[in-house]
Amino acid sequence: MSAARMQVLSSRNVRLLSRGRNEVLAGRSGTQRHGGDPRTRSLTCPPMSSSSSPGRALSSLSATRRGLPKEKMSENGIMSRAKVLTIDTMNPTVKKVEYAVRGPIVQRAVELERELSEGMKKPFAEVIKANIGDAHAMGQQPITFFRQVLALCSYPELLSDSTFPEDAKSRACRILQSCGGNSMGAYSASQGIDSVRQDVARYIERRDGGVACDPDNIYLTTGASDGIVTMLKLLVCGEGTTRTGVMIPIPQYPLYSAALAELGAVQIDYFLNEEKCWSLDITELQRAVNEARQYCNPRALCIINPGNPTGQVQSRQCIEDVIRFAAKERLFLMADEVYQDNVYAEGCQFHSFKKVLFEMGPEYAETVELASFHSTSKCYMGECGFRGGYMEIINMDDEVKDQLTKLLSVRLCPPVPGQALMDLVVNPPQPGEPSYGSFIKERTATLSALAEKAKLTEQVLNTVQGISCNPVQGAMYSFPRITIPEKAVKEATEKGQQPDMFYCMKMLEETGICLVPGSGFGQKDGTYHFRMTILPPTDKLKILLNKVKEFHQRFTQQYS
Amino acid sequence: MSAARMQVLSSRNVRLLSRGRNEVLAGRSGTQRHGGDPRTRSLTCPPMSSSSSPGRALSSLSATRRGLPKEKMSENGIMSRAKVLTIDTMNPTVKKVEYAVRGPIVQRAVELERELSEGMKKPFAEVIKANIGDAHAMGQQPITFFRQVLALCSYPELLSDSTFPEDAKSRACRILQSCGGNSMGAYSASQGIDSVRQDVARYIERRDGGVACDPDNIYLTTGASDGIVTMLKLLVCGEGTTRTGVMIPIPQYPLYSAALAELGAVQIDYFLNEEKCWSLDITELQRAVNEARQYCNPRALCIINPGNPTGQVQSRQCIEDVIRFAAKERLFLMADEVYQDNVYAEGCQFHSFKKVLFEMGPEYAETVELASFHSTSKCYMGECGFRGGYMEIINMDDEVKDQLTKLLSVRLCPPVPGQALMDLVVNPPQPGEPSYGSFIKERTATLSALAEKAKLTEQVLNTVQGISCNPVQGAMYSFPRITIPEKAVKEATEKGQQPDMFYCMKMLEETGICLVPGSGFGQKDGTYHFRMTILPPTDKLKILLNKVKEFHQRFTQQYS
Repeated sequence: MSAARMQVLSSRNVRLLSRGRNEVLAGRSGTQRHGGDPRTRSLTCPPMSSSSSPGRALSSLSATRRGLPKEKMSENGIMSRAKVLTIDTMNPTVKKVEYAVRGPIVQRAVELERELSEGMKKPFAEVIKANIGDAHAMGQQPITFFRQVLALCSYPELLSDSTFPEDAKSRACRILQSCGGNSMGAYSASQGIDSVRQDVARYIERRDGGVACDPDNIYLTTGASDGIVTMLKLLVCGEGTTRTGVMIPIPQYPLYSAALAELGAVQIDYFLNEEKCWSLDITELQRAVNEARQYCNPRALCIINPGNPTGQVQSRQCIEDVIRFAAKERLFLMADEVYQDNVYAEGCQFHSFKKVLFEMGPEYAETVELASFHSTSKCYMGECGFRGGYMEIINMDDEVKDQLTKLLSVRLCPPVPGQALMDLVVNPPQPGEPSYGSFIKERTATLSALAEKAKLTEQVLNTVQGISCNPVQGAMYSFPRITIPEKAVKEATEKGQQPDMFYCMKMLEETGICLVPGSGFGQKDGTYHFRMTILPPTDKLKILLNKVKEFHQRFTQQYS
Repeated sequence: MSAARMQVLSSRNVRLLSRGRNEVLAGRSGTQRHGGDPRTRSLTCPPMSSSSSPGRALSSLSATRRGLPKEKMSENGIMSRAKVLTIDTMNPTVKKVEYAVRGPIVQRAVELERELSEGMKKPFAEVIKANIGDAHAMGQQPITFFRQVLALCSYPELLSDSTFPEDAKSRACRILQSCGGNSMGAYSASQGIDSVRQDVARYIERRDGGVACDPDNIYLTTGASDGIVTMLKLLVCGEGTTRTGVMIPIPQYPLYSAALAELGAVQIDYFLNEEKCWSLDITELQRAVNEARQYCNPRALCIINPGNPTGQVQSRQCIEDVIRFAAKERLFLMADEVYQDNVYAEGCQFHSFKKVLFEMGPEYAETVELASFHSTSKCYMGECGFRGGYMEIINMDDEVKDQLTKLLSVRLCPPVPGQALMDLVVNPPQPGEPSYGSFIKERTATLSALAEKAKLTEQVLNTVQGISCNPVQGAMYSFPRITIPEKAVKEATEKGQQPDMFYCMKMLEETGICLVPGSGFGQKDGTYHFRMTILPPTDKLKILLNKVKEFHQRFTQQYS
C-alpha cells in the first residue's frame, strides 16, 4: 500500500472514530429513560414475545454489521470525498440554527447515562435531566380522563366497555363523529377539526370572561412551536435594511432564535429586567425598536407570558402597555401563552393578551394584529409527546388568512390524536359529570405540587452564596443568576467555552445533574445563569437542589 | 356622514361579504365527513352530555356574534387599512406555494356538502371526495391490532384487561418502556424513539433481503411530508444560476412543487412517459438536467415509486439506471416510497432504491447519497391522521447528519402516537402470535380490495370515448387522460381557468364528484387529466365511475 493511500486511510480512521461518537449522540440525543424513577407508572407487562423483545435490539445492531460493515464503507476515501451534500454546500441558514435545550450538554448527559448503564464508575448513581420541560418523563401522571378518551378514540370497540365513564364515552363519540369515517386515522381539515375549534373558541370565551371568539380564528397546530414558526414564516420579507425584524425577549426560549435564523429574519433583542423580577420594561422595548429601525424593518413583537426560561408573570398593566407600544410602532403581536395555567406566586394572575386587547376598546381591539399560542404540552397536562396545540389569530388580513390556510394545507393536518387531546383540555369534565371529581383532584394535585416546588427551588437556591434566584412566579423553570469566579471564566475562555457552559458541564460530570447554561437563552454580557426545571418529584428535587448547592460551593472554592 | 366616509364604509362592506365566504372556505376546507357512508364504522354512543353535544356548536357560533360583532369590527375603515401583515407585505415565497389536492375545487366541494346539509336542492344526493388518498374517510377499517396497541399505550391501565391479546400488550409495553416516564406524553428523542428506529431497521433488512440497515440512519418523521421537506431544506443554497435545482417528475405530487416554492429552490421538471404507462425515461432525465444546468445547480433527484398521481411501478432495471444517472450527474437521490405495499398489477413488484443501490456494488453503494421515505398513511394502514413516518438516509456526510439532528431538535420530536403506529407497521404480529391470523386477514382484505378497484377503475374509464387510462399498477390513484373539446377549452380560457379545472368544476357541480384536475400535478402542454382515488368502497366506486362516464359523454356532446 502506498504511503499516500495509507495517509488517506488513517485520516479516514480518525473521522471514523469521531463518527462513531457522533452517531451515538445523533442517534440518542434527548432520549428520555426514567425506568429508575420511583414515580414513573409501573407497568404490569406480560412476558415479551421474541419478535418484540428489546433483547432483539442487540442482535439487530450486530446484524447491521452484516452485509456492508462500516469499515468497508469507509475504505474508499476518494469517492466519499465527492459527496453532493456537505457542511460547506448545505443550506447556510440551517447551519446558523442553534437550540440549547437539546444541545451538547444533553448529548453528554445521554452519553453518561449509557456509560452508567454499562457499569462505568461515576461520582453519581443517576443522571437527572432538569434541562427540559418534560413533565411525564419526570414522573408526572397524565390526567386519567384524557387518556380514557384517547383510548376510546383509538379503539372505539371500547365504547361498549362498561368500565369507562359515560362522559369519557360522549367526548370520544363527539371527536370521532367529527373525523372522516369516524376514525382518528383520517386526515382532518388543515385548520383542524371543526368541532375541536368550536370547543377551543368556547374555552377562550370562558377564560376571557365572555370576550367573543370566532372558531374561524382558531388554527390547530402540531404543538405551539409549529404555530409560532408558521406565523413567523408569514411575516418574513425584504432584504438588507428592509429585512423583517422580530423582537424577542432576552432571555428567550431558543425556538425563537432558531426559527428566525432558519428564516433569515433579523432578531431584535429586548432585555427583561432581572433586578425587577424579569419584568418587561417599555422603555427597553422602545430602545430596542429604535436601534433596530436603523438596520431592519421591525414587524413583530414576541412575548412569552408566563416567561420561559424566566418564570415571570406579567401584570395586566404591563400587557396594556405592550399592546399600546405594538399599536404605536405597528408591530404584529405574538403571545406565547403555553404556561397559562402555571401561575404560582401570590398576587400573580394570568391575563391573556386577547382579553386585555379587547378590554382596551375598539381603537385597539379592531386594529392590533395578534396571534396567541397554546399547547397540550405544559400546564397540568404535560402531554408533550402528542404535539397538540392551537393558535388564535386576531385582526389578520383576510387575504393573508387564506394564504395561511393554503400554507397549512401542504402539511395536510396536525396529528389528530393531538387535536383530540387539545379538545379535552378545552372541554374537560363539567360539574355533575362522572369524571369531574377525579379530574379536579388530579389537576389540583399536579398544580399545587408545582407551586410547592417553585417555592422550594427559589428558597434553597437563594441560600447559596453566589446564586440569586428570582421568585418562580409561573411556568416550569428557575433561571438563577450565578457568580462565576474570574479564574473559571479565564479557563473557560481558554477552552473556547461560554463560562456558564463550562460551569454546567462540570456540574454534569461531577453530579449527574443536566441543566442548560444561560448562554443558550441569552443574557446580559458578563452575567451568567442556568435554567433548571422544577419538574422532578419533590423528594428528588430536594436532593437535586442540595447537590447544586454543594457543587456551587465546591466550584467557587476551587476557582477562587 | 361625509361622502368620503360613506365610500370607505361601502367598500369595506364589499370586502366583508367576500370575507364571510373566505372564512367558511378557510375554516372548513378539506373537512372529511362521511357519516352517510355505509362502510364507516358505526359507533355505539351513549347520549351526549350537554357540555359536549355538537348541538352547542351552533350556540357557540352565535355566541361569537356577541361582544364584538364583525359589522362593528369593520366600521373603522381607516385603521384596518393600516395592517402590519398584508398580501403585499407577507413572505413572497409563501404566496408562490400551490397545493391542488386541497385547492379551490375541494373548498367548493365542502361548500356543496354544507348546502346539501342545509336542504338545498342539487342534482346529486351526496358529495364524493375522490380527491385525496384518505382511506379511513372512505370507509377503510383500521387494523384491529394496531388500534388495540394504541389504546393500551394511551391508557396503560388496560394492560390488565384480559380481553386484549398478549402480543398487543407486549408491543405496548415495549413502546411504553422506551418512553420517558413510560408515557406517550413525554418527548422522545428528536430523531425518534430508539427501539422504534431499531424495529424500522430490522423491517428494512427483511424487506431488502438482508441488506444491512443501521438504526442510526433512521429518522422518524411527522408523516413522509415532514421528512421530504426537511431533506429539501438541507439541500437548498446558492443564488441565481448557482441556486439549488431539484428534479421532480411531471406529473408530480404537489408537496414537491409547494416545498420548492417555499424554499425558493428551482424546480426542474422531467416528464414521465404516458405512452409507456408513465414510465421513467433516462434520456428525458438527461435532457432535463442538461437544460437546467444553464440556469441553476441541479443537486437532487426526486422519485415517487409507486407513482403518485400516476400509479406506475418502476422496474428494477429502471431503478438501476436512475441510480447510475444520479451517480454520474452527482445528484442526491430522494425516493418517495410511501406506496411500497400498494402494488397490484401482474408482473409488477416493488424494489426499494436502497436494495437496488446496495446490490449494484460498492462503487454505488458506498457513494450515492439516498434518502428514502415511508409513512403510516398509505399501504394497507391508511392511518393518515396519526402523521407517522420515517426516512432512511444513506451515505450522508457525518457533519450534515449532525446538522440534520440539530435541525430536528428545534421541533422537539415527531408525535409519539405516530411513532408507536410506525413501530407496529414495521413490527406486526408474527406467526404463532395470537393476533397474527386476524392481522393477515385484515391486511389481505384491504390490499386485494384495492387491487380489484384498481382494475375496475382502469376498465370502466377505458370504455369511455375521450378518456384513456393507463393501468393502475400501484399506489391509490388513476390519472386518466381526457379529451376536452375546443369549445370547452375556449370557454375555460375566457374564464381564466385551466381547461381541466373547468371540466372538474363542472363535474363537481353536476355530479357531486370531487376530483383534482391534472393541471394541479403538472402535465404536457395541451394534454388534460384528472386524479381520482380508487379508495371508495367497490359498490360506491362503480356508481362513481358510471357518473364520470355519463358526465364526460354529456360534456363532450355539449361542447362539440
